[in-house]
Amino acid sequence: MTSLSTQGGVGLVSPQRVALCEPPHELYLQSGRILGPIDVTYETYGTLSPQKDNVVLVCHALSGDAHAAGYHAPDDRKPGWWDPMIGPGRAIDTDRYFVICSNVLGSCKGTTGPASVNPRTGRPWGMSFPIVTVRDMVRVQALLLDRLGIPRILCVIGGSMGGMQALEWAVRFPDRVHSAVPISTTGASSPMSIGFNKICRRAIMSDPNWRGGDYYGQEPPRDGLAIARMIGHLTFMSEASMWRKFGRRISGREGIFAFTAQYDVERYLHYNGYKFTERFDANSYLYLTKALDIFDLGDGFPGGMEEALAQVRARIRFITFTSDWLYPPEDTDRMEGILRRLGKRVEHIRVESDYGHDAFLVEYDLYAHHVSAFLEEVQAEVRAAVPGP
Amino acid sequence: MTSLSTQGGVGLVSPQRVALCEPPHELYLQSGRILGPIDVTYETYGTLSPQKDNVVLVCHALSGDAHAAGYHAPDDRKPGWWDPMIGPGRAIDTDRYFVICSNVLGSCKGTTGPASVNPRTGRPWGMSFPIVTVRDMVRVQALLLDRLGIPRILCVIGGSMGGMQALEWAVRFPDRVHSAVPISTTGASSPMSIGFNKICRRAIMSDPNWRGGDYYGQEPPRDGLAIARMIGHLTFMSEASMWRKFGRRISGREGIFAFTAQYDVERYLHYNGYKFTERFDANSYLYLTKALDIFDLGDGFPGGMEEALAQVRARIRFITFTSDWLYPPEDTDRMEGILRRLGKRVEHIRVESDYGHDAFLVEYDLYAHHVSAFLEEVQAEVRAAVPGP
Repeated sequence: MTSLSTQGGVGLVSPQRVALCEPPHELYLQSGRILGPIDVTYETYGTLSPQKDNVVLVCHALSGDAHAAGYHAPDDRKPGWWDPMIGPGRAIDTDRYFVICSNVLGSCKGTTGPASVNPRTGRPWGMSFPIVTVRDMVRVQALLLDRLGIPRILCVIGGSMGGMQALEWAVRFPDRVHSAVPISTTGASSPMSIGFNKICRRAIMSDPNWRGGDYYGQEPPRDGLAIARMIGHLTFMSEASMWRKFGRRISGREGIFAFTAQYDVERYLHYNGYKFTERFDANSYLYLTKALDIFDLGDGFPGGMEEALAQVRARIRFITFTSDWLYPPEDTDRMEGILRRLGKRVEHIRVESDYGHDAFLVEYDLYAHHVSAFLEEVQAEVRAAVPGP
Repeated sequence: MTSLSTQGGVGLVSPQRVALCEPPHELYLQSGRILGPIDVTYETYGTLSPQKDNVVLVCHALSGDAHAAGYHAPDDRKPGWWDPMIGPGRAIDTDRYFVICSNVLGSCKGTTGPASVNPRTGRPWGMSFPIVTVRDMVRVQALLLDRLGIPRILCVIGGSMGGMQALEWAVRFPDRVHSAVPISTTGASSPMSIGFNKICRRAIMSDPNWRGGDYYGQEPPRDGLAIARMIGHLTFMSEASMWRKFGRRISGREGIFAFTAQYDVERYLHYNGYKFTERFDANSYLYLTKALDIFDLGDGFPGGMEEALAQVRARIRFITFTSDWLYPPEDTDRMEGILRRLGKRVEHIRVESDYGHDAFLVEYDLYAHHVSAFLEEVQAEVRAAVPGP
């Protein structure tokens, strides 16, 4: 059993940054546009083995970043976003694995995105930044691994948008990925999730402070981004978890019959919605939700999803949570079924949980052992297949 | 089998308006505030029987109005919002029943609400309008029936917020209601639905055109209201119905890789969101969503829901749709269970449908016969209990 305590993690860590795709090696994006140079911020935990066979690539979700584990400073209030999963003796055991997590293309946490300066103009890209896709994010990660001299990944793992990246890795780089753990994800964004993302974008774009995306150095579209984030939060929870967490509790100085009276769920959404605006760029929210919407694993394959999954050589362990209604487990069932018919090595762990989509960021006890056991198995496979030194 | 064709409905109808609660008979609202006079707009279809025993009170949902059936003018493009259900030979058969539908308190369709003029100031109420509740709406309906000389209702029926009104009627006026058909509703708003309503209100209130609710005569908060309505639309649908209706179809002159590219679901939401702003007042949206949030049938009873339902004397037929995730059928199961334990006459028709919450406004074929058969039964009961003329 893996220890999930907050003690004894990876400790102090430092983000690193590299410039990729410098001229003349610019990146051809899926859209056909060219982008470069691309700064990439990443963190690593653990030690790369001499055989370079112990790399676990962690992919983050929409609002995540490269800081998956540990602390940047001794007085940090919170560790990295997946800290309970990563560290010595934890599910992704840094005594065994070399863990890499990089901020995705289009984000605002140290990797090039719309808030970055366009070197051609000397001003932030804003809405002149090209549309990026999950495939583009993964290709930038592949270039980062090239730079680090890492030819092959033991396992690529991530939840939500991170799971989409894990799937893209398995489909687009079948020879570089020994295994993948896509968590709480889907093979193609549903019209329901596109609909929610559309409303998020509308909220941002109709905020007068958005100014066509050209708000840098001025008051940003805080209301719009807060509304977007509130919508996100609701889709990450479940009916049951919200009854448990908030119920119908209410507080208000003027009594219940006033707009100032706030149910606990309202206060939670309001607080977290506006807090998010302190740490995230509204334009990045536009670009990353667009990338989610465009995501369709079968896209570009005449045979669609079936042909996409036929590329896979990695062993795949899907993990889903039964109450996830944003990316319902049935989506994963479909991929699992196809992979099984194709004779691929695939498992689908359906975790009973009423927490909703965000369970993978909360209910570690319910699934961490499914990750650690899988990693141990695939590492043993890789080591058995390769002659010793 | 009931005919559901658009031919042969109630034909041309005219809304009527009465002023209730004129001084000194003002209405004491649930909040403790006083309101009056209250204009109420209503429509009736069919003929009141001499015994006044054939009244069906239809209650509308959040964005509805008194115009439930028929046409206001020969060239109207659309009939009333529940037209397929109401008319000669239809489920709510106007050859047999006298149907009444009135616009709710707080709305903007002819009944007093925040867009109405406050007689004390000569200006629109705006946010000085008092908070109203579902209970207040029902009490205004009761006063309307008093004015019309109708002591007792054969059946009160409605979906969503209309179903909440049907439940309030059965609990608050047990001697006036012979039967009730609450459809796609709940006994108390869930934190999930409160959360969505909160985001809707935030979108309206953070639109600079909202101006603290004092926008009448100026440009209204169109963006905010459109966003609110888009959120509503998404919660009214289901994953399955959206895959069927929209899938991942997309169109855009500049190709897929542009923010101008719109998935069909985006175009649907955008069009319907902004179209709604032409016919609905943003402040009414604030007040009615607040009324939804406050709604808790057990509120005010020391014994809560159980004690509330103990008041019921009406026969109740609940109707729910299996894919309704806004007001899940499980909420209705709970009320059904309590009523059954209390020895009340209750049924729960669970209609298999993948359409979502809005099924009651779309899939008439799936449930109209459950309404017509119920009405025939309760009318026969009432007529058998009363000695003939």
